[in-house]
Amino acid sequence: MSNVQIIKGQLVWSESANKLAALENGYLVIEDGKVKGTFSKLPEEYKGVSVTDFGNKLIIPGMTDLHTHAPQYGIRGLGMDAELMDWLKKYTFPEEAKFSNEEYADGMYDLFASDILYGWTTRAVIFASLHTKATEMLMDKLEATGLVTMVGRVNMDRDGGEDLVEEDAKTALKDTRKWIEETKDRYKRTSPVVTPRFIPSCSDELMEGLSKLAEEFGLRIQSHLCENPGEIALVRELVPAAAGYTDAYRRFGSLQNETHPSVMAHCVYLQDDEVEMLKEKGTFIAHCPGSNLNLASGIAPAAKYLRAGLNIGIGTDIGAGESLSMPSQLVLALQSSNMYWRMKDKGVKPLSFAETFYMATVGGGSYFGKVGSFINGFDADLLVIDDSSALAGQCLSLTERLERAVYLSERCLVEAKYVMGRKIV
Amino acid sequence: MSNVQIIKGQLVWSESANKLAALENGYLVIEDGKVKGTFSKLPEEYKGVSVTDFGNKLIIPGMTDLHTHAPQYGIRGLGMDAELMDWLKKYTFPEEAKFSNEEYADGMYDLFASDILYGWTTRAVIFASLHTKATEMLMDKLEATGLVTMVGRVNMDRDGGEDLVEEDAKTALKDTRKWIEETKDRYKRTSPVVTPRFIPSCSDELMEGLSKLAEEFGLRIQSHLCENPGEIALVRELVPAAAGYTDAYRRFGSLQNETHPSVMAHCVYLQDDEVEMLKEKGTFIAHCPGSNLNLASGIAPAAKYLRAGLNIGIGTDIGAGESLSMPSQLVLALQSSNMYWRMKDKGVKPLSFAETFYMATVGGGSYFGKVGSFINGFDADLLVIDDSSALAGQCLSLTERLERAVYLSERCLVEAKYVMGRKIV
Repeated sequence: MSNVQIIKGQLVWSESANKLAALENGYLVIEDGKVKGTFSKLPEEYKGVSVTDFGNKLIIPGMTDLHTHAPQYGIRGLGMDAELMDWLKKYTFPEEAKFSNEEYADGMYDLFASDILYGWTTRAVIFASLHTKATEMLMDKLEATGLVTMVGRVNMDRDGGEDLVEEDAKTALKDTRKWIEETKDRYKRTSPVVTPRFIPSCSDELMEGLSKLAEEFGLRIQSHLCENPGEIALVRELVPAAAGYTDAYRRFGSLQNETHPSVMAHCVYLQDDEVEMLKEKGTFIAHCPGSNLNLASGIAPAAKYLRAGLNIGIGTDIGAGESLSMPSQLVLALQSSNMYWRMKDKGVKPLSFAETFYMATVGGGSYFGKVGSFINGFDADLLVIDDSSALAGQCLSLTERLERAVYLSERCLVEAKYVMGRKIV
Repeated sequence: MSNVQIIKGQLVWSESANKLAALENGYLVIEDGKVKGTFSKLPEEYKGVSVTDFGNKLIIPGMTDLHTHAPQYGIRGLGMDAELMDWLKKYTFPEEAKFSNEEYADGMYDLFASDILYGWTTRAVIFASLHTKATEMLMDKLEATGLVTMVGRVNMDRDGGEDLVEEDAKTALKDTRKWIEETKDRYKRTSPVVTPRFIPSCSDELMEGLSKLAEEFGLRIQSHLCENPGEIALVRELVPAAAGYTDAYRRFGSLQNETHPSVMAHCVYLQDDEVEMLKEKGTFIAHCPGSNLNLASGIAPAAKYLRAGLNIGIGTDIGAGESLSMPSQLVLALQSSNMYWRMKDKGVKPLSFAETFYMATVGGGSYFGKVGSFINGFDADLLVIDDSSALAGQCLSLTERLERAVYLSERCLVEAKYVMGRKIV
């Protein structure tokens, strides 16, 4: 049974969108990199297989960071006094422009790859910049970590300023095609994702061309949607024929379909018809609560989306978000949903801890397939968390320990990490 | 010049409520535990005095944690799915009841004292529990840290449940008097503060008696005010003669006066007349943004209070707040004020970073006197912060380094800490 691994410890995972399951001193059986099942007693057939025993450590599914910007890692925790459009021009675009310098890209992407590896993330969907060479460097480094990621060379043929803009739609599409051809079969765990920055940065011709490219190569699309009122007003001006921001993406073909769903970050301000449109297309929403707080964007009604059956996960959104820590984003998601309930709509009950954990594991993980739980058939992505210094000598249930580990994650250590059954930390 | 100390490093401090000052490779001169001044070149008269050189480290004033509950340290990061009144009964009161057990108190207070010592806090105003013995243990431990603190034996003669309530007002007042007499001159840096939990937990007789006790001994009073709509409605029922919650405290004498100001935690929901009342009395508001988010209480308009000239500082409010980290509370204060502006009142511009830093240093520090800045005459309370692993190899100005250190505090180290010129870390 060389294809079988058995891991023992204090298991907690999502059974459904609002229910955690827990198993003390449980066995997690993995076959061919996939979860076979969880057991309180090891079944007879596995006797003789060696057990990796993590003792009293927590063992939970890995988390998916559904939206983040690697080349903004250098500006995190700076300039948090601006709204989206100003922040992009003042801080973000000048920083991303630096990634034409390969030496700079090499150093910053080393740091990014190392930090994301040692955090709670096992999968991620990532924006690079418009620089092909730097994007490939990032892909190389992420492949080396053992994480599973999708990485986008960013397209933007207008409004980025002199130092950060593609020449025109044709050149942008030609360069993107070349990058896709070069990278789509190069890696085991890293794949290209088509990445129009957002409508304000992309001409109609580019938007449409990118959707066709994605279709031709069977790739996904990622972008930003309804983050800030000013941005939304701008898109209405730019695409007057569309019923709204989401409809504009739909017209450009950017929403794709259930088989190849796109991921749209933020979705703070969706009208009801837009919610329906995303649901129909199977689009994944990347909820980025920290970013939305930092840029004063607003609060996305994540609880409403989740309960309406939309696909939704959580993103750290570096550099508007200040850290790659997924547990910190979980706390901010909970706090934000409390405020949405208190200040905006008493009809949307705050997120429960179980729902929030689900979004971070199964919710975002589903973008990659059966990922984010310990249910039979799921990919064996897992974290071993040493929460001993957060326990304060107290006797807590496993779900309480998980809740506290998330709230006090800076006191917890990721002792081991497995992706598809492969130990990478 | 044995009473002179000179500290060198990268100095940043608040010059005023909305302006940071910074001095690269600056000298901070301390005489008799007080700041003499900051200098880019060392004045002639100090030549010969040895300089403690912290090189490229950030040196900033220490922070004041204006509101926190030591006996709730064991329940932080748990049960964040309840509102105030339910949370108190379900989680808080049962936990505080455990502090009748001295062994339990000893362990938990050791942990609390150690964690607060190694964080960014140099001064704190703290709730203990109603247990005299445990409260004195906490005071002993805090005195040993070298921090300057005010600690309150909590009064509550109603509604705490069987295991956490004082017998009656008379007994409560007698026990409190005894505790004050025993502790008021025992310590150098630790003093008792009169602590009615809040009006729902205290009879009228107890409230009035405590104000008299405070006056008799020249002590301060701390309590909670306008945290949650349900709590506010309850106080209106309990004190029908008062115009509102703040007026109820005023009638009981709990607001004290400018010379001996009380500190009131939260103040999420103040009417205009209540703001005026607090301003007139010089009351300090302890803004606890994390707690207010976690318990879905709401967002206090801290920016409005600060700009209206009220005394206001920041509190971690353990255990509704999940950590003793002051920088984390600064970030949450900034994020909360963004949401207050976005969702509630566009007339209240979000807090700037400088304003938020001011609240955490000078704002709360002023409760103790001239504390929280590097201006001549201020107590020499300071932190030496190693932010090297947050810098990411980038060239930042000192104020940018400070902002990033606050946002990425989990990557920063408190390398040294001085209180009144005395090195305690």
